Amino acid sequence: MKYVGRLLGLAIMLSAPLANAGDINLKLAHSWPKDFPIFGTSVDEYAALVSEMSDGKIEIKVDSRNKHKSAFGIFDFVKSGQYDIGQSASYYYGGKDPDTLFFTTMPFGMTAIEQYAWFHEGDGLELANEVYAKHGIQVMTGGNTTMQMGGWFSKEINSVDDLNGLKMRIPGFGGKVMAGVGAVPTNIPAGELYQALERGTIDALEWVGPSLDLRMGFHKIAPYYYTGWHEPSTELMYFFNQEKMESLPAWAQSVLLNAAKLTGFNMTIESQHESSENWHAMSSEYPNIEVRDFPTEVMDALRASNSALLEEEAARSDISKRIIDSQSAYLKKTREWTAIGDQSYLNNVGSK
Amino acid sequence: MKYVGRLLGLAIMLSAPLANAGDINLKLAHSWPKDFPIFGTSVDEYAALVSEMSDGKIEIKVDSRNKHKSAFGIFDFVKSGQYDIGQSASYYYGGKDPDTLFFTTMPFGMTAIEQYAWFHEGDGLELANEVYAKHGIQVMTGGNTTMQMGGWFSKEINSVDDLNGLKMRIPGFGGKVMAGVGAVPTNIPAGELYQALERGTIDALEWVGPSLDLRMGFHKIAPYYYTGWHEPSTELMYFFNQEKMESLPAWAQSVLLNAAKLTGFNMTIESQHESSENWHAMSSEYPNIEVRDFPTEVMDALRASNSALLEEEAARSDISKRIIDSQSAYLKKTREWTAIGDQSYLNNVGSK
Repeated sequence: MKYVGRLLGLAIMLSAPLANAGDINLKLAHSWPKDFPIFGTSVDEYAALVSEMSDGKIEIKVDSRNKHKSAFGIFDFVKSGQYDIGQSASYYYGGKDPDTLFFTTMPFGMTAIEQYAWFHEGDGLELANEVYAKHGIQVMTGGNTTMQMGGWFSKEINSVDDLNGLKMRIPGFGGKVMAGVGAVPTNIPAGELYQALERGTIDALEWVGPSLDLRMGFHKIAPYYYTGWHEPSTELMYFFNQEKMESLPAWAQSVLLNAAKLTGFNMTIESQHESSENWHAMSSEYPNIEVRDFPTEVMDALRASNSALLEEEAARSDISKRIIDSQSAYLKKTREWTAIGDQSYLNNVGSK
Repeated sequence: MKYVGRLLGLAIMLSAPLANAGDINLKLAHSWPKDFPIFGTSVDEYAALVSEMSDGKIEIKVDSRNKHKSAFGIFDFVKSGQYDIGQSASYYYGGKDPDTLFFTTMPFGMTAIEQYAWFHEGDGLELANEVYAKHGIQVMTGGNTTMQMGGWFSKEINSVDDLNGLKMRIPGFGGKVMAGVGAVPTNIPAGELYQALERGTIDALEWVGPSLDLRMGFHKIAPYYYTGWHEPSTELMYFFNQEKMESLPAWAQSVLLNAAKLTGFNMTIESQHESSENWHAMSSEYPNIEVRDFPTEVMDALRASNSALLEEEAARSDISKRIIDSQSAYLKKTREWTAIGDQSYLNNVGSK
């Protein structure tokens, strides 16, 4: 065939058989129900973007958790090669590898733009890939919720004492920080949250922020909406099976990684938009919602609890220490700029 | 040839002659000197990304202003088809079409993430394309400086009176706002700015922010660094010759537009990073720099001057009114969210 090709002056075409339509067929699994707003629909947009930019040469079949039945199985799916690509949140996989914890968001940590700078201009993505390489996975940032709210509370929190024994749905590292000040963190499936709050099984819960909270209806039964501290910039992540990636031509790897990065930025922008729309709707339609900041005393206690936990984490391994040091140094420097940049601006000309 | 192809089972390859390497060759002009940090280097990254994702099928030759000699000629270059693509700032072209003014940043306007939401989830990009379509140009967001600082002043500004007769380098709409409170705005080429400030030809100037100010050295002679108000989110823009774009296959248009959008987001992240690094360097090495907020009285006067100018602009045409109304409505809604999101967070756990 190659000879015939050369004879007909078709050598270039023959040497690029991967350039045929649909030649690269990939399977992707994400953590969300089918058509789940923002988190899930953004993955459908990813597949469409990859197909469009590659002129149909790369086609991605997207499976939601309705299909694969395992919201928290994405890490294993991609590690094993059962799926080529995954989209989920890194911190769901602390049980698989405790160092995956750091690549979503950290209490008292960076905001979305600060954390993106750490990932892509600092050494954040490099450190994430160092952690994931041990599992044969390559990663890319996948979209940010922007600031998550501190949660919905049935009662006002005026002191650290008010947190003592408080039953709150708050999973992950934020939950551990809460436990450090005497609260009782629990995790409850999304579908049971409203009833748990209504019946007093829990006194408080955090979900996301206005972008996804409105449809949950928590404001009807727990009117105190506290501002954020525990997840200032929750970043989703794309996982790629390393072996599969390396089997693909360079242009296809580039399309897959850059389309993921772009889709992630698009999702971040969409989160800002949806939070704006939904917060406006909530605050106009439900004037009983009371936005509250935690008192300084409470913030100080939470910060101390957080620092103690980070010290434990840093003592765990060489890489956990390097990640925590990198985040802490980056945050310090970038916040100095944010303080005289966006923060001063918002305070001087802001919403007043 | 088509018959031979079918005979050999090569019909698909023969029907896609555009898939040959370097088949689409495009010329791009940008406004900056060769290798100009962030603004210029980001365009070189754009060309590399397009080439990589298209497997060399689209090659872009980038000309800096060292080559084409016309920093502010980008609009005409792309309109006439002399260049296929351009990268510049929309507000440089108010002389060509006053409605281009609105698509970079506005005094007292949206921050970077808020404005991105307006462009891509609100109707910002649609309105921009409506304005540019009249000139045969299609546009895409191209990268944000993040917050620009209010500028370097030799003396403190304690009242509106202190602005009276103050000679300041501040071009564009911000300059008009300053004129409205009695200042004397001027524009001076970048290369002469330092000397003008040193010799007292001007009393103050605004440039960008820490990301690009450090190398200019203004902090050595004008120690008061005022926080921002006039350019909260300066967005660069990619221009595409519409006729040329429409002659390209859909996948190529998609690669060109999406790579521009991604390069823009990357540049925004880089601006955050460089501002963090450079502000840290400046504030450590030059402790004489005094960061100042304008007093409330001054901010109120500037805002009143801005509102009066916007009213004039809105009266100018149907589309200017629609753009101003769209920005104002979007800002109001999205700032309500920012206020309880990022702003509350930064104030509660921020840099203190």
